Amino acid sequence: MIKLVLIRHGESIWNYENIFTGWTDVDLSAHGITEAKQAGSILKKEGYVFDIAFTSVLKRAIKTLWYILDEMDLTWIPVQKTWRLNERHYGALQGLNKAEVAKKYGEEQVFLWRRSYDTPPPPLTLTDNRYPGNDVRYRSLSKEEIPFTESLRDTIFRFLPYWDDAIAPAIREKKRVIVVAHGNSLRALVKYLDDIPDDKIAELSIPTGIPLVYELDEGLKPTSKYYLRGD
Amino acid sequence: MIKLVLIRHGESIWNYENIFTGWTDVDLSAHGITEAKQAGSILKKEGYVFDIAFTSVLKRAIKTLWYILDEMDLTWIPVQKTWRLNERHYGALQGLNKAEVAKKYGEEQVFLWRRSYDTPPPPLTLTDNRYPGNDVRYRSLSKEEIPFTESLRDTIFRFLPYWDDAIAPAIREKKRVIVVAHGNSLRALVKYLDDIPDDKIAELSIPTGIPLVYELDEGLKPTSKYYLRGD
Repeated sequence: MIKLVLIRHGESIWNYENIFTGWTDVDLSAHGITEAKQAGSILKKEGYVFDIAFTSVLKRAIKTLWYILDEMDLTWIPVQKTWRLNERHYGALQGLNKAEVAKKYGEEQVFLWRRSYDTPPPPLTLTDNRYPGNDVRYRSLSKEEIPFTESLRDTIFRFLPYWDDAIAPAIREKKRVIVVAHGNSLRALVKYLDDIPDDKIAELSIPTGIPLVYELDEGLKPTSKYYLRGD
Repeated sequence: MIKLVLIRHGESIWNYENIFTGWTDVDLSAHGITEAKQAGSILKKEGYVFDIAFTSVLKRAIKTLWYILDEMDLTWIPVQKTWRLNERHYGALQGLNKAEVAKKYGEEQVFLWRRSYDTPPPPLTLTDNRYPGNDVRYRSLSKEEIPFTESLRDTIFRFLPYWDDAIAPAIREKKRVIVVAHGNSLRALVKYLDDIPDDKIAELSIPTGIPLVYELDEGLKPTSKYYLRGD
């Protein structure tokens, strides 16, 4: 039986401070580090082993993975980092306090930006410091690939090629895979795996630091899924 | 001007306890963690940036690299891990106390095992737990590649193909490279770069946790080298 393990990074400093993060490269909070170590410890206790890991180019995911691999004594496995697993880009909301944004634009608008399928937050401009084209780590992306903002739909469409080109082939080669990513890049993957309709995705949220195990058949279709919460 | 940065991992628990380590996967000591963070902090202060990192499949090197990248805010760069950058395999001496081995075999013999060019320590047997063929991380190696013991010469000969196939090409592509490895895999590289004769290599040793900068010309020949020790 094929098992695929997904984990959302541990709590970040901006999760804790209630700030829109997106592609901002915010570090883990002390609690987030504890969550990451616990995830590793649970996976080890349950007998999980991985042959390859996939993560984003954002440190809250990368460092969550590092803590997990260290707990599992698997620091030596290959790790692939890709911008395609990044959190959804939150456009001009990045860096703003969620409560203040709600006061300014209304709860309903903020709910749409946060959870709807195809409503992107207001876009950045080219000269904004937050525009990823101004960050060296995205220099290999084409102009069309660099987002000014993203809806969940946009996130899915930039993530899926990576599933097809890198993650799914690794699983088909019988590699045991762990993916450490973000609330919305994992919602994109779960939506795809579970074939969730566009108008049902608003209800789905994924907790930080809890391993989500998918059991897949030979066609990589899910037969079962569950969280590993320890005892 | 091309710069290549080499670093020997921070002090490990067995460095501290005076035990032959080789391919045993021993963790950093508390002092080793401090050394690693300091190396990252010095590199950052001196304005170094890297595009790619190479390290071994042993956690004392991998975690030294992780601490360095975290200090430098470069967690997102690609990291290539290879057994070819592992420490020299210490054969049947792995896990033994250096002082006790010296008492049993004599100082002169131990000096030969530790520093000579082509005297390998006594070999392991196939059924020894320490034989790398019994460790899942080496399952992709051919039987001929898996060592029972290694002289420095053996270490050089298994490292050089990786220099030619992976590290040198990255440098030629104008990537800024950091290599985090081990006392003897770095002696192998330094011997090659500086063209040190076989009978002079015994004198060379490389300190833990201090960045060693090579300036190279277009043919990747060294024009200058120095340690970055901070102030």
